[in-house]
Amino acid sequence: MIFSGLNFNDEEPVYLQIENYIKSMVKSGMLVSNGKLPSSRELSKLLEISRNCVITAYENLEDKKIIYTIKGKGTFISPGQSSDIDEWKVSWDERINTYGHLAYELDIVKHEIPWKKNLISFKSISPDGELFDMEEFKKAFLNRISLEGHKLLNYGYAKGYKPLMDFLLEYMSTKGIKTDNKDTIITNGFTEGLEMLLTAYTNPGDGIICENPTHNTAIKIMRVHGLNIVGVSMKQDGVDINELESKLKSGGIKFGYLIPSYHNPTGIIMKAEKRYSVYNMFKKYNVPIIEDGFNEELLYNSAQISPIMALDKGGNGVVYIGSFSKILFPGIRVGWILGDRKMIETLESVKRCKNIHTSFLDQGVLYEYLKSGDFEKYIKRTRKFYKEKYEFALNCIERFIKPASIFGEGGMHIYMELEGIDSRELLEKCYKKNVIFTPGDVFTVDNTGKNALRLGLSRVSLEEIEKGIKIIGECLNDCKK
Amino acid sequence: MIFSGLNFNDEEPVYLQIENYIKSMVKSGMLVSNGKLPSSRELSKLLEISRNCVITAYENLEDKKIIYTIKGKGTFISPGQSSDIDEWKVSWDERINTYGHLAYELDIVKHEIPWKKNLISFKSISPDGELFDMEEFKKAFLNRISLEGHKLLNYGYAKGYKPLMDFLLEYMSTKGIKTDNKDTIITNGFTEGLEMLLTAYTNPGDGIICENPTHNTAIKIMRVHGLNIVGVSMKQDGVDINELESKLKSGGIKFGYLIPSYHNPTGIIMKAEKRYSVYNMFKKYNVPIIEDGFNEELLYNSAQISPIMALDKGGNGVVYIGSFSKILFPGIRVGWILGDRKMIETLESVKRCKNIHTSFLDQGVLYEYLKSGDFEKYIKRTRKFYKEKYEFALNCIERFIKPASIFGEGGMHIYMELEGIDSRELLEKCYKKNVIFTPGDVFTVDNTGKNALRLGLSRVSLEEIEKGIKIIGECLNDCKK
Repeated sequence: MIFSGLNFNDEEPVYLQIENYIKSMVKSGMLVSNGKLPSSRELSKLLEISRNCVITAYENLEDKKIIYTIKGKGTFISPGQSSDIDEWKVSWDERINTYGHLAYELDIVKHEIPWKKNLISFKSISPDGELFDMEEFKKAFLNRISLEGHKLLNYGYAKGYKPLMDFLLEYMSTKGIKTDNKDTIITNGFTEGLEMLLTAYTNPGDGIICENPTHNTAIKIMRVHGLNIVGVSMKQDGVDINELESKLKSGGIKFGYLIPSYHNPTGIIMKAEKRYSVYNMFKKYNVPIIEDGFNEELLYNSAQISPIMALDKGGNGVVYIGSFSKILFPGIRVGWILGDRKMIETLESVKRCKNIHTSFLDQGVLYEYLKSGDFEKYIKRTRKFYKEKYEFALNCIERFIKPASIFGEGGMHIYMELEGIDSRELLEKCYKKNVIFTPGDVFTVDNTGKNALRLGLSRVSLEEIEKGIKIIGECLNDCKK
Repeated sequence: MIFSGLNFNDEEPVYLQIENYIKSMVKSGMLVSNGKLPSSRELSKLLEISRNCVITAYENLEDKKIIYTIKGKGTFISPGQSSDIDEWKVSWDERINTYGHLAYELDIVKHEIPWKKNLISFKSISPDGELFDMEEFKKAFLNRISLEGHKLLNYGYAKGYKPLMDFLLEYMSTKGIKTDNKDTIITNGFTEGLEMLLTAYTNPGDGIICENPTHNTAIKIMRVHGLNIVGVSMKQDGVDINELESKLKSGGIKFGYLIPSYHNPTGIIMKAEKRYSVYNMFKKYNVPIIEDGFNEELLYNSAQISPIMALDKGGNGVVYIGSFSKILFPGIRVGWILGDRKMIETLESVKRCKNIHTSFLDQGVLYEYLKSGDFEKYIKRTRKFYKEKYEFALNCIERFIKPASIFGEGGMHIYMELEGIDSRELLEKCYKKNVIFTPGDVFTVDNTGKNALRLGLSRVSLEEIEKGIKIIGECLNDCKK
């Protein structure tokens, strides 16, 4: 095909024209190093010339080491010949827009303390992979792929894999949610769920109310969307309801974003009565609530506490974003949004703009795993596992740290405030002794939280918990000196 | 936990206070239908009251059918009791922003002709799933999951799964691309690749040059980002180079977007010489090129034609977006961006804002499949398969349609222009006879292409191709009457 640009003239011998043409194509880089040339037979046929002309041209080029031949394989372009033209240098840095700058600046991974050997890291709240039931997962894969492998590996639907969607609707209804006026869409985890909602329903400058402190990734997503983030202080039982009302009253608020169960970072569970007043407050000002289902599966109670969305009954003022990523297979990135039917219809089109749909393979395998019933058993095991860790860590904290206050009552992490201590300074000292945690300021919307810190417990052993917390306690005493 | 809101007064009997508390919790919906209550023993312990009070309260509630007991299992809330409060109705439609509106409006799936039985659809250009090698895929899954299942199922890295990234860098270098000043990031398919780039490097109102017609999803993504889309007409060998220059000269252009191989929709392959002039033109005006690797794997030539990016050598003016989705496993949504190292670093943070990372399970399995060597064999089989279809369809078109012009020379689709025919009108007639295709206007940026249509061949059998094209020919004659 590259030879279709060769138009013969009547002045030069044909073999020479072929030779020069190949030379110039090699020089400009259009014929690639080690790329295969057509055989002399093919080329003579293609160009409608005598085969001898091609053979002569190839022989001359081979003499000049521009091409080489491997017997039985063909003729190839010799490497390292293309001319060094002026390199095109684009200043990508100058072209980054506000979104790109903010995404980079707020990317905590980019500004992380470097990993070192034997580090005890209390940063993670991702699940302990050792809990995953690999044999069941393999079984789920093989079952589902045998049933409809070709379907799962080809393009699917933007809303998601129907059996999984139905499973999740049913699952959410067991939480007391009325689902018949609602619909669901599968997303690549919680992050994409929030991102999609903000993409379609907010404009730069819009207000969004959230708990302060709150989930740092959520803050980042709101920031890159240019939202005006309005934080409401946290009391021991959740948001300050009077402050909430005064901020709702001030207007310009498009959404509320709340994490009612084992709130990140404080670990606070918003009690049923509080959920009711918070729900009614947002309803009064007609500001829809985005409910982050974070850690909800870890709630371990005899009397089930229902999501805020359950209070909305046939209403459509609450949007629920769910994900199992904090307990199950976060690597496959499957989450969901549950909400008003028409809203989901809009998000379906948004999803098609973002990435067409979430992996159907992952959705199929997750569905198979969930429906097998192993999930119930798994959740119970997981609850027990993290509860033990939590209680053990709490005990260590009381022994070694004695913080000014500990919020919350469980989950995968512990949040505490320390009197008169800068947690960044503490972190620096701890890092020298091979212990790290997340300083509180990353969770706040107003650069407060400087005396707070979060310990993520999911990826550290009991032994490490004890050792690490002891070291934090020692460094804390150092700070006080 | 729901009972922590119960504060006893001294006026009423304790059992009555418990009874009333549970009643109000049920009514407000905070105690969920069929939710389990703590046992009388647990609750008395929790509230530090006599167990008899709890038993009395439960008995009274059971009499009133507010709760029910299953022997050996426990006490539960009876269904269907919560009060019907005023429903909260949010007008989601009024809250949709421009992005949301455009995403919906430009979503061709939302405005599609309804499917019916026995329809011959020439709309799809997604791969024929029957070609997928399921046994090899299963093997790849089992191998990879045995090696590092826990790792693949837990959180991974935003840039991607390292072995897959390395594989792709090596793969791209065999296409003649100098990769040592470049880096790659894994995306959820081509769509997300383009979306991420535009998110971080364009602002509403910026100009973007593309071939006209071009890939309809790309047009949609540019539109929702508020870009000023500047189309350049296509000649039989690709973009009109003079028009390209005059549009670059006019200024305000942030990017060029090009599909050099089996261009969608026209099927044109940009020849090596043309690639060179197009590359130099963009370089002259310092406007980076986004090269869509679409269909590149289907190029079947003895002399390899290299991507435009290969001409950029050590430069950084070309960004390549790749995906195997048109030939292999589109359901798993894995694509990649190859480009300037610092640019990829920015996109890494953007990816973390969008959805943290692409499924590590999918990346791991795809890597295992690709490195097994089956991919090479698969591509060869695929090329042959689609080439046969293409040639067969071309023959049918010559027999039954005789279009004014056919562009391109291969791939999974055929694009043609018909003289004096409105392709939407033709589509209406064909639909009545159970044949559909994509009308040309969806691919244009200026509402032209009304006399054109695209036939996607990948999902129709030879028999259907012949039958379908014959019907299109008949309807065409009807239109001319």
